Amino acid sequence: MNHTASLNYIPTDIVSVSDYERYAREALAYDVLEYINAGVADDITLDRNRIAFDAMSIYNRVLNDFSHSSTQVELFSGRLKQTLSHPILLAPVAHQTLIHADGEIATAQAAAALNIPMIVSTLASKRLEDIAQHAGPHWFQLYWQPCRDANLELINRAIDSGYSAIVITLDAPVNGLRNRPQRAGFLLPNDININLRDLPQAATKTLNPSDSIILNGFMSDAPNQNDLVWLRQQVKLPLIAKGISHPQDAILLKKLGFDGVVVSNHGGRTLDTLPASIELLPAIRAAVGDDFTVLLDSGIRRGSDIFKAMALGANAVLIGRPQLWALATAGALGVAHMLKLLRDEFEITMALAGCSNIENINAESLFTRQA
Amino acid sequence: MNHTASLNYIPTDIVSVSDYERYAREALAYDVLEYINAGVADDITLDRNRIAFDAMSIYNRVLNDFSHSSTQVELFSGRLKQTLSHPILLAPVAHQTLIHADGEIATAQAAAALNIPMIVSTLASKRLEDIAQHAGPHWFQLYWQPCRDANLELINRAIDSGYSAIVITLDAPVNGLRNRPQRAGFLLPNDININLRDLPQAATKTLNPSDSIILNGFMSDAPNQNDLVWLRQQVKLPLIAKGISHPQDAILLKKLGFDGVVVSNHGGRTLDTLPASIELLPAIRAAVGDDFTVLLDSGIRRGSDIFKAMALGANAVLIGRPQLWALATAGALGVAHMLKLLRDEFEITMALAGCSNIENINAESLFTRQA
Amino acid sequence: MNHTASLNYIPTDIVSVSDYERYAREALAYDVLEYINAGVADDITLDRNRIAFDAMSIYNRVLNDFSHSSTQVELFSGRLKQTLSHPILLAPVAHQTLIHADGEIATAQAAAALNIPMIVSTLASKRLEDIAQHAGPHWFQLYWQPCRDANLELINRAIDSGYSAIVITLDAPVNGLRNRPQRAGFLLPNDININLRDLPQAATKTLNPSDSIILNGFMSDAPNQNDLVWLRQQVKLPLIAKGISHPQDAILLKKLGFDGVVVSNHGGRTLDTLPASIELLPAIRAAVGDDFTVLLDSGIRRGSDIFKAMALGANAVLIGRPQLWALATAGALGVAHMLKLLRDEFEITMALAGCSNIENINAESLFTRQA
Amino acid sequence: MNHTASLNYIPTDIVSVSDYERYAREALAYDVLEYINAGVADDITLDRNRIAFDAMSIYNRVLNDFSHSSTQVELFSGRLKQTLSHPILLAPVAHQTLIHADGEIATAQAAAALNIPMIVSTLASKRLEDIAQHAGPHWFQLYWQPCRDANLELINRAIDSGYSAIVITLDAPVNGLRNRPQRAGFLLPNDININLRDLPQAATKTLNPSDSIILNGFMSDAPNQNDLVWLRQQVKLPLIAKGISHPQDAILLKKLGFDGVVVSNHGGRTLDTLPASIELLPAIRAAVGDDFTVLLDSGIRRGSDIFKAMALGANAVLIGRPQLWALATAGALGVAHMLKLLRDEFEITMALAGCSNIENINAESLFTRQA
Repeated sequence: MNHTASLNYIPTDIVSVSDYERYAREALAYDVLEYINAGVADDITLDRNRIAFDAMSIYNRVLNDFSHSSTQVELFSGRLKQTLSHPILLAPVAHQTLIHADGEIATAQAAAALNIPMIVSTLASKRLEDIAQHAGPHWFQLYWQPCRDANLELINRAIDSGYSAIVITLDAPVNGLRNRPQRAGFLLPNDININLRDLPQAATKTLNPSDSIILNGFMSDAPNQNDLVWLRQQVKLPLIAKGISHPQDAILLKKLGFDGVVVSNHGGRTLDTLPASIELLPAIRAAVGDDFTVLLDSGIRRGSDIFKAMALGANAVLIGRPQLWALATAGALGVAHMLKLLRDEFEITMALAGCSNIENINAESLFTRQA
Repeated sequence: MNHTASLNYIPTDIVSVSDYERYAREALAYDVLEYINAGVADDITLDRNRIAFDAMSIYNRVLNDFSHSSTQVELFSGRLKQTLSHPILLAPVAHQTLIHADGEIATAQAAAALNIPMIVSTLASKRLEDIAQHAGPHWFQLYWQPCRDANLELINRAIDSGYSAIVITLDAPVNGLRNRPQRAGFLLPNDININLRDLPQAATKTLNPSDSIILNGFMSDAPNQNDLVWLRQQVKLPLIAKGISHPQDAILLKKLGFDGVVVSNHGGRTLDTLPASIELLPAIRAAVGDDFTVLLDSGIRRGSDIFKAMALGANAVLIGRPQLWALATAGALGVAHMLKLLRDEFEITMALAGCSNIENINAESLFTRQA
Repeated sequence: MNHTASLNYIPTDIVSVSDYERYAREALAYDVLEYINAGVADDITLDRNRIAFDAMSIYNRVLNDFSHSSTQVELFSGRLKQTLSHPILLAPVAHQTLIHADGEIATAQAAAALNIPMIVSTLASKRLEDIAQHAGPHWFQLYWQPCRDANLELINRAIDSGYSAIVITLDAPVNGLRNRPQRAGFLLPNDININLRDLPQAATKTLNPSDSIILNGFMSDAPNQNDLVWLRQQVKLPLIAKGISHPQDAILLKKLGFDGVVVSNHGGRTLDTLPASIELLPAIRAAVGDDFTVLLDSGIRRGSDIFKAMALGANAVLIGRPQLWALATAGALGVAHMLKLLRDEFEITMALAGCSNIENINAESLFTRQA
Repeated sequence: MNHTASLNYIPTDIVSVSDYERYAREALAYDVLEYINAGVADDITLDRNRIAFDAMSIYNRVLNDFSHSSTQVELFSGRLKQTLSHPILLAPVAHQTLIHADGEIATAQAAAALNIPMIVSTLASKRLEDIAQHAGPHWFQLYWQPCRDANLELINRAIDSGYSAIVITLDAPVNGLRNRPQRAGFLLPNDININLRDLPQAATKTLNPSDSIILNGFMSDAPNQNDLVWLRQQVKLPLIAKGISHPQDAILLKKLGFDGVVVSNHGGRTLDTLPASIELLPAIRAAVGDDFTVLLDSGIRRGSDIFKAMALGANAVLIGRPQLWALATAGALGVAHMLKLLRDEFEITMALAGCSNIENINAESLFTRQA
């Protein structure tokens, strides 16, 4: 792997998530750095994620009662209900041994230490069973496999290992234009996708000469609505669809029996010029109603970003790249510290915004500039 | 000529159109580079073309049916109908031997290889008959000549060589303020306009001392409505007017019997502070109705830009400067590869935007920020 | 302390407040500079304060009558009325011996020389009694202490020393994310809070393991409404609440019997992504009506900024960081000169805006761009 | 004086007004350059002038009739009518011998060569009688003198020397914050105001200690409405007020019998954060109606800017700093060439915008972005 040894302490000038990005630049080879930091094409969506959060405004409120404070949230409903101490989860992030020898094991240890749920990727570079052993609460992220049986095998392995929810990613049926890692010459190591070994394979398809490899090839391997109906039948756990940007798609997934969606632009890594995910959130929340779990990722770098997502209707947020920056810098210790920074920043934001608990956080917490 | 030898392979770090621009900077002399890259005056319109595309937003859509996918488009109607495998044409670009010894011949070979129509400029630096021999589908672009017979001779030569449409450029009756090439000392080589040799000449006009060389001189050589009525009578092929920015002008041209217009600001090379062409498109499409061919150029650098133009009503787009960058870098091979990049990017955009064919691409594919 | 000797003259190239910032950069150690110049987190609110003032527009007016000109303003009403020669006060700024050996004494001398009221901070590094001896008009700023008796002692000391108003700061119950000084390794010297020595202490509280240090710990020490009712009973002087950003909070404070509020985001030093204070002002003025004193701070760097604040409803403004820049540069002489610059700039703005007195300054003095 | 010898030819890389700025930077001492290039305070209005023009958009129009083209404009009405070959005048610019030994004489020669009216400043550094001898059409700009007789003497000298209009500047009763030249240590040479020598002086006034030098001192020397009534009685020539930014002031001046106004922010040199003058124009034109002469200056650097001003209601524009840049670069030759560049650019803009004469230029020539 390309990474240097990570630190076994937290440097005193790491006081925010962005400081971990700075350290990660030192710790990683250029091509790996480009692979994890880049968005797609011209990074327009990547940048929009930050611009949108930074453009939002929170009111400072004074004199509110904080004698009964809590940061606790509940996801899903009925027998599927899950309680989180803070509205923070670790997003599924692939290939973590590229960054640190302990990879997802270290990340799992950090998440466990802070009791923060970790969503383990199908493309984890450690066995999903091994990660589960070190994790606190853990969910499994599924990249749909062309062969249904392969999906079933992955899900059953996850259930057997105590994964408590299944998240299927829908927004990446084809790879986006990963121009920055392409220019840097980045190549994934062979066999890094340890969890995809020895899975049942779909029958080989052939394309006509006039067919598009993209539209006729890759897209025929994407899951369709029937596949999701089948999937819902296999999964008794909470089932969540990740990568939703349009309200009609959220409504469809709710109709298909899903328990939640993740509003996401995949950290700016699928289609460039997608809006910031936070821009998409209000319409999706309005479309699905108040009683459906809506998570959000893409661009969260501050506790105040978490607050803003909650104010616009998210039930919790997912943290993506920062776990890689912290992992590269200081392994499990780094990831734990990074999560604690975000958690403390979120609480400070609640305190200064006059919100003693999650229910108090709503659109009126935000200042809207007059047109 | 000022150009160095171009490459006979594609460097691995060319993965997008903008990478060709970077290579072209190395390959070309400064004055030639300024000539092809500059807009006019302060490059405001040049920059607006990019800013406008980058500011637009596409929705990611999931779970749509792709079993009957196609990128095919039809231009014009009735007996004039032409079918393209993708909504992409090569814009007319003058003086290509400034860039590469093979000039328009190489470009024609590349376009033929990808079955993309090439619009050959009146100011091509190769004989229009020779270019036609190497091209796939090819159209002829006419710069109006002060003498009607000269226009007739050019058109007839084009028809005789198999050009299948005539595009008359209307937005450049006088040269724009080419300040950047002027500062760089760029001068066109003598006799580069090989297709204008030995044409019939208009009678010499004299101006009064108080006359404006621009308003009384050059503008008297611009085609007027009668000239276009005459032109329509000469041309049985599809006849298209290029350089339209105002809806009323598009309506007038439709009334004059034209088969289509190209919404264009000439790549920012005529009047500075013209809007981006994509900003002009919706009102023009609304003005001419759905059954009239509207093409667009100026600023297309990504497959997602093509998608956006289609969503706002274009039937197809024209690619300008990128053919010069690719030609300078690697000749016909470069142009073919550049076209393939755009074509693949366009298909990836369709896939991620959930559009299995061109008819699915419309204004609802775009996210519009609330005011 | 970290500061070098300050100048005993005003350099000729100091002609505006920002010039003092430039000189202060030379005079102070990096960590101290970061401590005073930084906002919180990503400095978004810090920057917004300037962006908002710079984006506003004033009309030039001609031919108005200036034969009865005045810059005088009145604050509060009835027996509490106070008259200022200009609508300018010195904001409470802590720890001034960090910047200059004479600290708050020098600042008080400068303010006295220009007859500008100084608001002395609870966290002053000189005894409030000593500062009072050198000051002109002076007010006392209170940071609420967990023990009510401690507050009473501070207030009574202030009253005994001739402080003529009490300002309680409400927007900083927890520290903001002071990331820049944290990265610079800044630490406050021990015992710098000379006015907090030997105060009565609150009983020690203990937190449960699941409690949040922020939401259950610090926030339980913040003043609540009952505390403010108690405070109002102790204070016969004008009582002002500082750090108000929401109209409902301003209304509440008016109901609690306060004589005024300071619209403020604490110079961008509490919660990042708060709006600029000037953006918050109009709604607060509208909420409390015309007869309630509303002051504003955060970002005033030009006399035209003072004019803009007055136009949107402020009765006067507070000047924060500039006093530190001027103090670092040239001690009392610097602070006095800085205040004179602002005062002259304000008068020039009035002259060119056609306003011969404060009552003439209103929203119609401002140009509003059409949407 | 600080200037070096100017060129006696036009360098080939001077192809636009901004190129003269570049050359002037080489030709002039830093303090003089700061004096002429700076706006006031933070240059916000200076920058806005350019930003506003650059943000506007012109439509390209095709196929219009240019057989009866003209750039001629008429100013004022009835017996006062004046005809200009182009809607361009030279703004009054003080102290031109700072820039070039021939100063205003050279500028006058250039203006005469292009038949462009020159507005000679009260603060010209050559005698107004001498300038008149070299000028084509010429107007006189009056800075109001505290003693009425002094104004009368200046006006009568101007009338005797063939000045054909009087322009009184109203927007500079006090100096703006010339911070940049102050920082550069710029000082005007003694006695440079040659036309103010030996004028009748007003009686010395004394201020009370509590008076403001600005509001009670300088402002009492500014002209009031009675002064303007008196002035109108003295002047049978067209009388114009310069420095108008508010519609009510324009209406007042029309009522006082003025023949026109100049919408101006004094090139960003009076009150910072004034709007761009072009932003102020539409409301002023609407206020005074179509039959009143409205000129505009501040920020014109391109022929397209002239077109935009005409489209929003100006009858002509004034060119300020560019005459200094051109004068510094190449004396009279430079100024003449600069004026020719602007004139040609304006004609090219008309040609491409489809306007064969001035009456065709109106708000419909501009593209307005949808909100």
